Amino acid sequence: MAIKIGLLGFGTVASGIPFLLKENEDKITAAARDEFVIAKVLVKDDDEKNRLLAAGHDYHFVTNVDDIVKDPEIDIVVELMGRIEPAKTFITKALEAGKHVVSANKDLIATHGKEIIGLAKDRGLAFYYEAAVAGGIPILRTLANSLTSDKVTRILGVLNGTSNFMMTKMVDEGWTYEDALKTAQELGYAESDPTNDVEGIDAAYKAVILSQFGFGMTIDFEDVSHQGISTITPDDVAVAQELGYVIKLVGDVRETDSGISAQVSPTFLPKEHPLASVKGVMNAVFVESIGIGESMYYGPGAGQKPTATSVVADIIRIGRRIVDGNVGKSFNEFSRPAQLANPADVKSGYYFSLTVPDKKGQILRLAEIFNGEDVSFSQVLQQRGDGQKARIVIVTHALSLTQLENVKAKLKAQSDFTLLNSFKVLGD
Amino acid sequence: MAIKIGLLGFGTVASGIPFLLKENEDKITAAARDEFVIAKVLVKDDDEKNRLLAAGHDYHFVTNVDDIVKDPEIDIVVELMGRIEPAKTFITKALEAGKHVVSANKDLIATHGKEIIGLAKDRGLAFYYEAAVAGGIPILRTLANSLTSDKVTRILGVLNGTSNFMMTKMVDEGWTYEDALKTAQELGYAESDPTNDVEGIDAAYKAVILSQFGFGMTIDFEDVSHQGISTITPDDVAVAQELGYVIKLVGDVRETDSGISAQVSPTFLPKEHPLASVKGVMNAVFVESIGIGESMYYGPGAGQKPTATSVVADIIRIGRRIVDGNVGKSFNEFSRPAQLANPADVKSGYYFSLTVPDKKGQILRLAEIFNGEDVSFSQVLQQRGDGQKARIVIVTHALSLTQLENVKAKLKAQSDFTLLNSFKVLGD
Repeated sequence: MAIKIGLLGFGTVASGIPFLLKENEDKITAAARDEFVIAKVLVKDDDEKNRLLAAGHDYHFVTNVDDIVKDPEIDIVVELMGRIEPAKTFITKALEAGKHVVSANKDLIATHGKEIIGLAKDRGLAFYYEAAVAGGIPILRTLANSLTSDKVTRILGVLNGTSNFMMTKMVDEGWTYEDALKTAQELGYAESDPTNDVEGIDAAYKAVILSQFGFGMTIDFEDVSHQGISTITPDDVAVAQELGYVIKLVGDVRETDSGISAQVSPTFLPKEHPLASVKGVMNAVFVESIGIGESMYYGPGAGQKPTATSVVADIIRIGRRIVDGNVGKSFNEFSRPAQLANPADVKSGYYFSLTVPDKKGQILRLAEIFNGEDVSFSQVLQQRGDGQKARIVIVTHALSLTQLENVKAKLKAQSDFTLLNSFKVLGD
Repeated sequence: MAIKIGLLGFGTVASGIPFLLKENEDKITAAARDEFVIAKVLVKDDDEKNRLLAAGHDYHFVTNVDDIVKDPEIDIVVELMGRIEPAKTFITKALEAGKHVVSANKDLIATHGKEIIGLAKDRGLAFYYEAAVAGGIPILRTLANSLTSDKVTRILGVLNGTSNFMMTKMVDEGWTYEDALKTAQELGYAESDPTNDVEGIDAAYKAVILSQFGFGMTIDFEDVSHQGISTITPDDVAVAQELGYVIKLVGDVRETDSGISAQVSPTFLPKEHPLASVKGVMNAVFVESIGIGESMYYGPGAGQKPTATSVVADIIRIGRRIVDGNVGKSFNEFSRPAQLANPADVKSGYYFSLTVPDKKGQILRLAEIFNGEDVSFSQVLQQRGDGQKARIVIVTHALSLTQLENVKAKLKAQSDFTLLNSFKVLGD
């Protein structure tokens, strides 16, 4: 008696699912102890249905979600529509109707996950979403299973393929942000409105989910500070290289004495750091923990087959548990009360790039400002000025978010200084 | 009612287990739904027992394995003694007495795994060994769980920390093999007899286990060809760099049309390959598959806490399954008849380094030999000779193991040629 699947949506990722089910049929059947059948597929309307049928897709297409959630034969509903609505309503309906659910919808899980996970738990149903973070990388299941024995202290991740593709072009080939974005859009990596990718919003969604699995804490999306890559200039990239760093958009979740801190920001990574060599659209999650120490999980962050692989892994797991009669275990069972870090406990080195009047005494003025906040310099670089203005770059030793705000406020209060950029620096 | 553990051996790794059980107690108890107690610890003799007690280790030490395997209270036996005997006898006794077993013993599992795994399966007992491959990297469970939906086509791994430490010194700092070995021994990374590490035997054990999890095929240790790093010269390292490669000892398991091929050998990795930046004692497993495409799992290959983290992950999994009442699932359920590849199907580029008489016409002679076997050159480098001899380096396009043997035989048949080294080249 095969396990029956209802697909919500039949876009790129969804069509990768039958490919894997067929290509790896023997292995999958052996693992699940049963076979899987795609019983029904929800599409938007009759136009889409007719188009797909005409293109040779031989599925039972339906246009009303009730045809799936009210079908007593269907065991697992797989949601691959993306965005919040109607995905949220449909998943809720599916769970209320007693279906197990697989989803790849990070936006939804990061913003309304608590509610949906709670519903699944109350009903004793599985709700799995491995594909929601770093598409093809099996990071969530690894954190939930293999790292149960460990205590994670920090997770650093290159979590957005689009912005990493752009940063790779900017770093390795000296492209401007604008050129990198244009090419990313031409290649279909970036949408016409690239905000979610380039401003760190997409990565922040993933940071919310990683903090659940890594630290057992469900934080709100609003608790993840995010800064994007759109202000990074070729000058920043060149100075970073000169100082031994590579700039990338990095998600950073860590536990301090007072609680958890989650940030997404352009980050100076030391060239030798394993994340520094993650190129193009690839993603990687770097985990610091008291047991393993340092480990990294690397792979494609998106794409049809990688994402479908994670979705099918969830499907198999549910199928096997249905057969074993122990389905319903939460995807992530690690849970502690969420506690946000005090900004005074969140410390990093920082890079400051600013223009100052091209006359003597400016480094002294800067030193007084930083010193006044108890922040010490690690590296200082003054570039030849044009008689009017000169550019100074400072890399500091570790300072807290509180100190950072104070230093920035003081720099901004100097009417003849212009703070061009400030970015986090890893290491030190 | 706590789950009781009997430890066989109390060396470095074993003593990391109570550290993790205590440090992560809440998380572990929540995951397993029960707590773990180390009930008894087997040591060699009374001397060791008294030494450990005097050092403040507060365990119930025993010197006879029967005190553990015949204790009806003990649920899980954890073997951390290493080597084949008496580990094999003790694990067998434990399984026969109905105990679940966790082991980190790659030598044993690679050479006698079939027998032990079969016994565990027959008795419906768990036999888990995540720590046996790449210590702290959760690669086995990831292959068994997350990659069930995928079809692995090749696994490439930096699987031996000792030799990778040495190769890193040889590549990054130009050290000789002898200097690198001496330092590795001084630092405790290499044993006084370093054969297992430097000749690829340890990595070959791991390749055997990886082929079970990645390809479902149990091959014999003898089926893994292994070549070590002891013949690599500073000249090889320098030429590799000049041509854009990094030399590392790489385990390589892949499926060809005719079957599986498993090799451990010094390998020229393109500088941009993710494995090329794996430095020092770190390990990494790079997986090529039809779903995810390329993924990599990076972390420490050995060490007390990393290895203990993997062991405790196995313990938690067994504990949870005991509580859930579904213990006994094999660690790896993917199994197909083992089929070895035809050498004619196993293809790679190769590097040849040789000395030839320092007179004209030598490249022509070489070209005739390679051409005669239908092998084409990708790169050729002739170094200035000393009037007597000249060194020539050739990198070929892909050739099969059959062609490789033929070319080598023909080169050796030329009495005035000396084949210094030949290594596999990745890419192309």
